[in-house]
Amino acid sequence: MSNSLYDFGMIGLGVMGRNLLLNMADHGFSVIGFDKDTTKNNALEASATPGTTVKGVPELATMVQLLQKPRRVMMLVPAGKPVDDVIESLLPLLEPGDVVIDGGNSHYTDTLRRVKYLREKQLHFMGIGVSGGEMGARTGPAIMPGGDVDAYEKVRPMLEAIAAKVKGEPCVAYLGKEGAGHYVKMVHNGIEYGIMQLISEAYSLLKAVGLDNDQLHKVFADWNKDQLQSFLVEITADIFLQKDDKTDNRLVDMISDKAGSKGTGKWTSQDAMDLPVAIPVIDTAVALRTLSGYKEERVQAAALYEKPATTINTPIDTWIQQVHDALYFGVLISYAQGLAMLYKASEELKMEIPLPQVVKVWRGGCIIRSVLLETFFNAYQQSPDLTNILLDKEVAGLVQGIATNARTVIAQAAQAGIPVAAIMSALSYFDAYRTERMPTNLVQAQRDYFGAHTYQRTDIAGTFHTVWEQH
Amino acid sequence: MSNSLYDFGMIGLGVMGRNLLLNMADHGFSVIGFDKDTTKNNALEASATPGTTVKGVPELATMVQLLQKPRRVMMLVPAGKPVDDVIESLLPLLEPGDVVIDGGNSHYTDTLRRVKYLREKQLHFMGIGVSGGEMGARTGPAIMPGGDVDAYEKVRPMLEAIAAKVKGEPCVAYLGKEGAGHYVKMVHNGIEYGIMQLISEAYSLLKAVGLDNDQLHKVFADWNKDQLQSFLVEITADIFLQKDDKTDNRLVDMISDKAGSKGTGKWTSQDAMDLPVAIPVIDTAVALRTLSGYKEERVQAAALYEKPATTINTPIDTWIQQVHDALYFGVLISYAQGLAMLYKASEELKMEIPLPQVVKVWRGGCIIRSVLLETFFNAYQQSPDLTNILLDKEVAGLVQGIATNARTVIAQAAQAGIPVAAIMSALSYFDAYRTERMPTNLVQAQRDYFGAHTYQRTDIAGTFHTVWEQH
Repeated sequence: MSNSLYDFGMIGLGVMGRNLLLNMADHGFSVIGFDKDTTKNNALEASATPGTTVKGVPELATMVQLLQKPRRVMMLVPAGKPVDDVIESLLPLLEPGDVVIDGGNSHYTDTLRRVKYLREKQLHFMGIGVSGGEMGARTGPAIMPGGDVDAYEKVRPMLEAIAAKVKGEPCVAYLGKEGAGHYVKMVHNGIEYGIMQLISEAYSLLKAVGLDNDQLHKVFADWNKDQLQSFLVEITADIFLQKDDKTDNRLVDMISDKAGSKGTGKWTSQDAMDLPVAIPVIDTAVALRTLSGYKEERVQAAALYEKPATTINTPIDTWIQQVHDALYFGVLISYAQGLAMLYKASEELKMEIPLPQVVKVWRGGCIIRSVLLETFFNAYQQSPDLTNILLDKEVAGLVQGIATNARTVIAQAAQAGIPVAAIMSALSYFDAYRTERMPTNLVQAQRDYFGAHTYQRTDIAGTFHTVWEQH
Repeated sequence: MSNSLYDFGMIGLGVMGRNLLLNMADHGFSVIGFDKDTTKNNALEASATPGTTVKGVPELATMVQLLQKPRRVMMLVPAGKPVDDVIESLLPLLEPGDVVIDGGNSHYTDTLRRVKYLREKQLHFMGIGVSGGEMGARTGPAIMPGGDVDAYEKVRPMLEAIAAKVKGEPCVAYLGKEGAGHYVKMVHNGIEYGIMQLISEAYSLLKAVGLDNDQLHKVFADWNKDQLQSFLVEITADIFLQKDDKTDNRLVDMISDKAGSKGTGKWTSQDAMDLPVAIPVIDTAVALRTLSGYKEERVQAAALYEKPATTINTPIDTWIQQVHDALYFGVLISYAQGLAMLYKASEELKMEIPLPQVVKVWRGGCIIRSVLLETFFNAYQQSPDLTNILLDKEVAGLVQGIATNARTVIAQAAQAGIPVAAIMSALSYFDAYRTERMPTNLVQAQRDYFGAHTYQRTDIAGTFHTVWEQH
């Protein structure tokens, strides 16, 4: 065995861990996985491509002993305590210079803590975001590594091999210091929340004019051939065709509207407020997912409140185009908010996140991949220090062209009582963002009136307080 | 001196602390304050009403020695470490049974920790929210106490004496266990953020049709006589008349649009996401206050993007009424979201917050006092377990009556490019809340498609996963 040590080890052989290992093995690396559950070890070995070197073992120590030095070990376990537990069990088995990778959705502050903790023990710890779901893990995910650059160089060959490729380039790059990998993945997921909410609103806007599932499929399939081309639009088109195996209906109509979440969208919103940076489309998506869970109250409210009598009378083809543009507008703003958050986080948290590399990585493999990322990549190539993608001239041109239809859709939806929270949030953010003077001077006046919180002036530097007269 | 011990002690003699003490003294209590800054001690004594017993001392130990037992001590110092520092300096000076009150804007989790810490030392610790600003503290604030009921009884006479009165009843009541006082105050502030943002949007909608400051004053003064009657509308009317002492302009026009914040709105949004409960109007207010700080970017964006050519052509009086209703609608939804949050928090965090008492306290003295609270109080009197105020029939009647104008305002604002983020957020929340079936079934389908996150069905209990077909 001494001549055949493995290149890479994986802790946790759920679908994601297994698929990443199989992907790596397909690219010529010898891989070994550990899971206490022997059925998972067997499943790993059984699904290996013939001719590849893939082994599953039920003892962590065995796996570590069988790894080449410096050892490269990734874990894919639930975020939180399980990650710390794995680290503690690994520590006695490792040697200085080994690299430990957390490939799950950990919060970046945990990653930061662990990087420091392992650094004291002369071990490298990296937080790496992996996106693409089960299928992506098997055939090519987007990979978002952050942490120690030296450690990245040690795992780079494997990561580049397994990552999705766009124009021949791997969807992986070093994305910044300390917890940057998990931070970028968190914001990726926040944008994903925004886009999914927006697509669900487009769906309800199209249903409101009578489109059935076949027509919905066709609309989304068409959209996936134009500027909206993206993974989420593509799978949405598929979804409308899926037959239910229990009834004669389409499956989408049999699925409950209570939407779940695993918390990364929430983290994105909460962390944005701490920076602070405004990402209201993502906040709205988080709120609406929460509201979807308040089913009983919604049923009560539906009985209590009348729907407006107004309906959408726009000719269907025109409406489809208007909804298309409203969705496209919302998606653009979602990316803009997420990327603005990364810009601010990179500065405030000193993570040195290279935005051109982030959008380059996101172009393929991940859940939010879309042709739009190519536009953003061009923008950042020209100005790597762009604070907000909306300030790029090409992006501005796109936004100007579709804003009018977004406005029309919102006007119609508001009158007809169709909730379009994320589309509205995208528009109000955009209109506030392109406003030189917001009406928040009044907010400052109020704060100074009741709480003596002071204000700044437009003409003279300094901080002022007024004893306001009552009338 | 032994015959003349003081009834109540205050730590920190800033304007709020001083005014609360003076208020208490005016109601016949003998009060003593401590501040290291002797000018503040002098200011306290100098501003006492003749015939009242008010003393300021520069040594904490002196103040504690001069207090009746059980001692009643409140601190009004900045949230965070200063509160812990005061507690540590107090500990050696106090005896079992004494009551320590934090009257500042501490986060409820800190209060919870401190309640437990002092309980181990047989001391009572209470977190008490105080709202009303400087003036309110002097003449009658709303007071939101939480913590130990026994401790509350020991300070109740003082708190009832100094609180604002509505219909002869004091705006103070025991509002729940542990950190409930600060929790209720936090949500109060969240609602305040929402309403202030909404008022600033109404302001911009009225300015858009050419109203000058005198006309704006008249509109808000009129509104303060109808269903919108409230402290924030009242002071808004005043604000438009305030002359600038440095130019010939009105002061409001000289105030910068960068709005500040002290963090309680942010906490409200972040904590709501943890519960979880949807409070998108408050989230939006937090986001827009943040965006107001991005002045340089907004100036750049204003140069890059054209404003829509559409303008508001509604006759002015009609428009004023429509904006009135849109504001009223938004304000109602802000309260609904905040109160729904308190309902959920009371359950999830086991604080036993009595909602009828909360709205009763809020009727007077505090920043969000308004005639609407009377309506809510009636609703909770009938159903103390109302999960959301929107489910009350009287409230539903109000909302139905004004929703149409809110829809019209949003439609117009969207077309004209006037950002009305909070009004839109209120409407989309309302329209989603009164929707029995949201389009989030599609979100669940997407999550199951790419991440095998499973879904529930509308017809059969259980959790399901589908291997979705690609087309």
